[in-house]
Amino acid sequence: MEKCPLPSAESKAKMRLSFLRVNAATGYCAYEPAPDWAWGLGGRGLTSAVVAKEVDPLAHPLGPGAKLVFAPGLLGGTSCASSGRLSVGAKSPLTYGVKEANSGGQPGGHLARLGILAVIIEDLGSSEWRQLEISPEGAKLATTQVAGLDSYAAVEKLREEFGPECSFIVIGRAGEARLAAATIAMTDLDGHPTRHAGRGGLGAVMGSKGLKAIIIKPGHHQLPIARAKDFQRAAKEFREALINHPVCGHSLAEYGSAAMMGLFNEAGALPTKYFTEGQFDKFERLSGETLNALTKSRGGEGRVARSCMSGCVMRCSGVFPDSAGQKVGKWPDYETMWAFGPNADIGDLDVVARLNRLCDDIGVDTIEVGACLALLMEAGIIKYGDVQTVLKLVAEIGDGTPMGRILGSGVAVCGRVYGLWRVAEVKGQALPAFDPRSVKGQGVTFATNPQGADHTAGPSYAANILGLGGDVDPLSPEGQAELSRRAQITAAAVDTLGLCLFVSFAFFESPKALDAVVEMLSARFDWPLTRQNLEALGQKVLSLELDFNRRAGLSEATDRLPEFFSQESVGPHKAKFDVSAQDLEWTLKF
Amino acid sequence: MEKCPLPSAESKAKMRLSFLRVNAATGYCAYEPAPDWAWGLGGRGLTSAVVAKEVDPLAHPLGPGAKLVFAPGLLGGTSCASSGRLSVGAKSPLTYGVKEANSGGQPGGHLARLGILAVIIEDLGSSEWRQLEISPEGAKLATTQVAGLDSYAAVEKLREEFGPECSFIVIGRAGEARLAAATIAMTDLDGHPTRHAGRGGLGAVMGSKGLKAIIIKPGHHQLPIARAKDFQRAAKEFREALINHPVCGHSLAEYGSAAMMGLFNEAGALPTKYFTEGQFDKFERLSGETLNALTKSRGGEGRVARSCMSGCVMRCSGVFPDSAGQKVGKWPDYETMWAFGPNADIGDLDVVARLNRLCDDIGVDTIEVGACLALLMEAGIIKYGDVQTVLKLVAEIGDGTPMGRILGSGVAVCGRVYGLWRVAEVKGQALPAFDPRSVKGQGVTFATNPQGADHTAGPSYAANILGLGGDVDPLSPEGQAELSRRAQITAAAVDTLGLCLFVSFAFFESPKALDAVVEMLSARFDWPLTRQNLEALGQKVLSLELDFNRRAGLSEATDRLPEFFSQESVGPHKAKFDVSAQDLEWTLKF
Repeated sequence: MEKCPLPSAESKAKMRLSFLRVNAATGYCAYEPAPDWAWGLGGRGLTSAVVAKEVDPLAHPLGPGAKLVFAPGLLGGTSCASSGRLSVGAKSPLTYGVKEANSGGQPGGHLARLGILAVIIEDLGSSEWRQLEISPEGAKLATTQVAGLDSYAAVEKLREEFGPECSFIVIGRAGEARLAAATIAMTDLDGHPTRHAGRGGLGAVMGSKGLKAIIIKPGHHQLPIARAKDFQRAAKEFREALINHPVCGHSLAEYGSAAMMGLFNEAGALPTKYFTEGQFDKFERLSGETLNALTKSRGGEGRVARSCMSGCVMRCSGVFPDSAGQKVGKWPDYETMWAFGPNADIGDLDVVARLNRLCDDIGVDTIEVGACLALLMEAGIIKYGDVQTVLKLVAEIGDGTPMGRILGSGVAVCGRVYGLWRVAEVKGQALPAFDPRSVKGQGVTFATNPQGADHTAGPSYAANILGLGGDVDPLSPEGQAELSRRAQITAAAVDTLGLCLFVSFAFFESPKALDAVVEMLSARFDWPLTRQNLEALGQKVLSLELDFNRRAGLSEATDRLPEFFSQESVGPHKAKFDVSAQDLEWTLKF
Repeated sequence: MEKCPLPSAESKAKMRLSFLRVNAATGYCAYEPAPDWAWGLGGRGLTSAVVAKEVDPLAHPLGPGAKLVFAPGLLGGTSCASSGRLSVGAKSPLTYGVKEANSGGQPGGHLARLGILAVIIEDLGSSEWRQLEISPEGAKLATTQVAGLDSYAAVEKLREEFGPECSFIVIGRAGEARLAAATIAMTDLDGHPTRHAGRGGLGAVMGSKGLKAIIIKPGHHQLPIARAKDFQRAAKEFREALINHPVCGHSLAEYGSAAMMGLFNEAGALPTKYFTEGQFDKFERLSGETLNALTKSRGGEGRVARSCMSGCVMRCSGVFPDSAGQKVGKWPDYETMWAFGPNADIGDLDVVARLNRLCDDIGVDTIEVGACLALLMEAGIIKYGDVQTVLKLVAEIGDGTPMGRILGSGVAVCGRVYGLWRVAEVKGQALPAFDPRSVKGQGVTFATNPQGADHTAGPSYAANILGLGGDVDPLSPEGQAELSRRAQITAAAVDTLGLCLFVSFAFFESPKALDAVVEMLSARFDWPLTRQNLEALGQKVLSLELDFNRRAGLSEATDRLPEFFSQESVGPHKAKFDVSAQDLEWTLKF
């Protein structure tokens, strides 16, 4: 594999991209020219590189040596469709390895257009909660008035003060309490904190910095583009490729990511009752079709096909209304539907939507919380389907009771506190909505990815189940390592560009979409890039993450699924996870 | 380093030593001849070898693949003084590495005299709590009537049924709840469950096997000794060496292990207020001198200088009475005095003794519990010295409330749940009563020992502070790696022989004591042994433990102290931990 070349040096000089470095202890904020090693990196590639270069791998994730990094992707802020994701990176208090979680919403594009390559928050906060205000005029750290508020309330108050043109990044009470499943919320096109950098507890890191909110006042200047016309042409091609793709251009807008519910249930790969079954008898109540139909029939504030960020043509988001037409919150994503649905034997869309809103408000990862609850159900500590108890317990996360803290600390800690061994996690992070025994390529991703069991780390399920980019038999151990390797490399590249992972569905099938992205990068930075280079970029990102993890003490022995997946069979196919240790070890050996 | 030779094969045949293998799921118990690889091993060496040979290093410590092993030492059951310790071993639910914790009391000697080399408990328990009954006639697993009872109450009931000649091993409610700081209690010479295999959560493993108690009815036959006269002569020499040693023969009997309180305070190495200070202004209220004087002055059931097991001449135990002369519980050990005393800013011996009894009853490690409480005090969540809250919270561990479960899960988990970074632990295990910045040899042991931060893993403090076996300056980084290496090898050998660790104080100073032990082993097993061989035996044990840990995913990067010990200075000497990474890596490289 050839190395990825760098964008031209002239282009670098012209871009004048900066790091914004913020010391949470002293309050000092300073712009500095982005260093040479950061050139050609963005998004996840850059957050991971900053962590790998600047953080002692043995530093505590919530200690003074930890850093929290925000970075828009390489295409962030441009007219490229679906390119405004914002990566957040740190050493994770959940996995103790490097973590990146990215989110839609407006902040990514806003930061990029301010010429900011990365925001780096250092040291520990003081006793006073603060907010970081970034505008075209500069940046400052100020006392905040929104500490203690839930995400929605905090954003509402900030918007009143700073105006509706701003975008906001906030943590909820979970982040303030430094819970290891705390998220970082970002405001969407409608100005609501519905988009979350959800996994790995990055909200706790932000909490440890004493930082409640970031306010971004957008600028009005256009980003410099080396070859603007070429860029525009490629951007148009890419947009069309997405719009013409059956999933990216149709299913996602109609049904959200919950479109996958029926497919995974049919495949026997929908983890039900905490990975004891592979199909959910009430899956139709939580399907994308039901989500769409109910939203439309209830009307009122309900809305289908919303973009979460400017320029996204996939529009997988929506607003879910209650029976009176009042807005409850955003459309639950597939993983959230799963976490509170089949996983906990709750077949009630209204309950799932309410829990989703509750978690968004508290600022806590629905996957970890759902995993905790279902784990306790499987152990007989809570009853399956006990909605009242579930609602009460999730509210306790916000209140910071001992039980709430346990549930907000993620499934691995919850399993430890309750002395349970059948815990579906890798590197301390909960397995999401794909049973690795019946979607084995996904199992390889969960086991080997440096981010732990992350649903965004390498979507092998596309070829395993959706029939996108090949059709590797999901039940055979053969070919899964190769499949997962490709998917992980693609995900790392996509995350580095600031694209939504769902565009990879188009990449897997349409060389045109991929070529258009290569052309946009090339045209933007005057960068002699090929498709193969992009692959090399993905590998580079994975390699530096793996290297950090090894230095942090996460050895190759941690690249495994829990034993019960190899011992217990599941679902209609009576599947066990039987990809060999040799294949797992091969997966990310470059 | 030459290898340790094996005892003679004829001796092996004559000994007819057995493994007792118990399947917790099926209830099947079977004796089997000890395999060849077990020959020449006992105690910790054997428990660790069984774990290393028979347990998948990636198995969950509380899952069906985990095993719990009990093994008396190589000198167990003989007339050798202080030789009756019983090692308990497993993959630890606290450290996720191999763990051995050994305990005084009568069960070790009893098992040894029944010709049992090791008891191995396999698989998971059923829903019914059971007890393992071992007698000269055989072994069986039976339904127990003592589930749910505290240790003292359980033992009392068992003694009524099985008679006072039996010894008992029980878990309390913490073990039943599978809490990762749960202990395994063993009955002492007085028949009380005061001796605990305390560290590493082995009580949780016993709980996961559904095993509440082990009853051992002793036999009456003498163990075969190859050269009985030589053995008796050496045993006498050893006994005399102990009796004539100022610590082993005097201080321990007078003041218990709390004799160390004054010395460590003077050295500025008594961790006070969760490792923020090195001296405790109220240390005299908790000193061994106070313990002795108060016990004597109150009279009644109070007793000084008790042996915890037959044949121990050091007699470091005692019975602590309340002001009315009623027995509260055993004399608190130094580490317990520290855990609830200086650590939590509680200068009240009556409170410490009561907490000690409470923890013994619940069956939970005083060090982990004290560490959790002080951690929460340091974070401002509980007030320092708040006795009422502390008593209430410790009681909650037994009741299994969410808060109780957090406190019973050890300091690393407690730190995670509360989002705290300044947590004094290595490999998930709490640092005990020695500040590694002011007793640097001890710091090396805590960092590098495969058992995690364990007070029994290699007492460098003997040479650092007590002036036993050299006088390596406790404040200098020089020479600590060599010191710790020797101490760790000695501890591993002592634990393999079934001797109390306190005899190592005599070893460090008196070649006679060590030679007598070599002679006893040699005479018992017809074993051509030298002093150097014994060192090789210690190394062998450490090596197989390290190898298991590496395969379990605990890489060399985990052999470090938390960063704050290198960043914050402590105590009158303003000491930081500054032993180099190179030295740490060298320590156990054989």
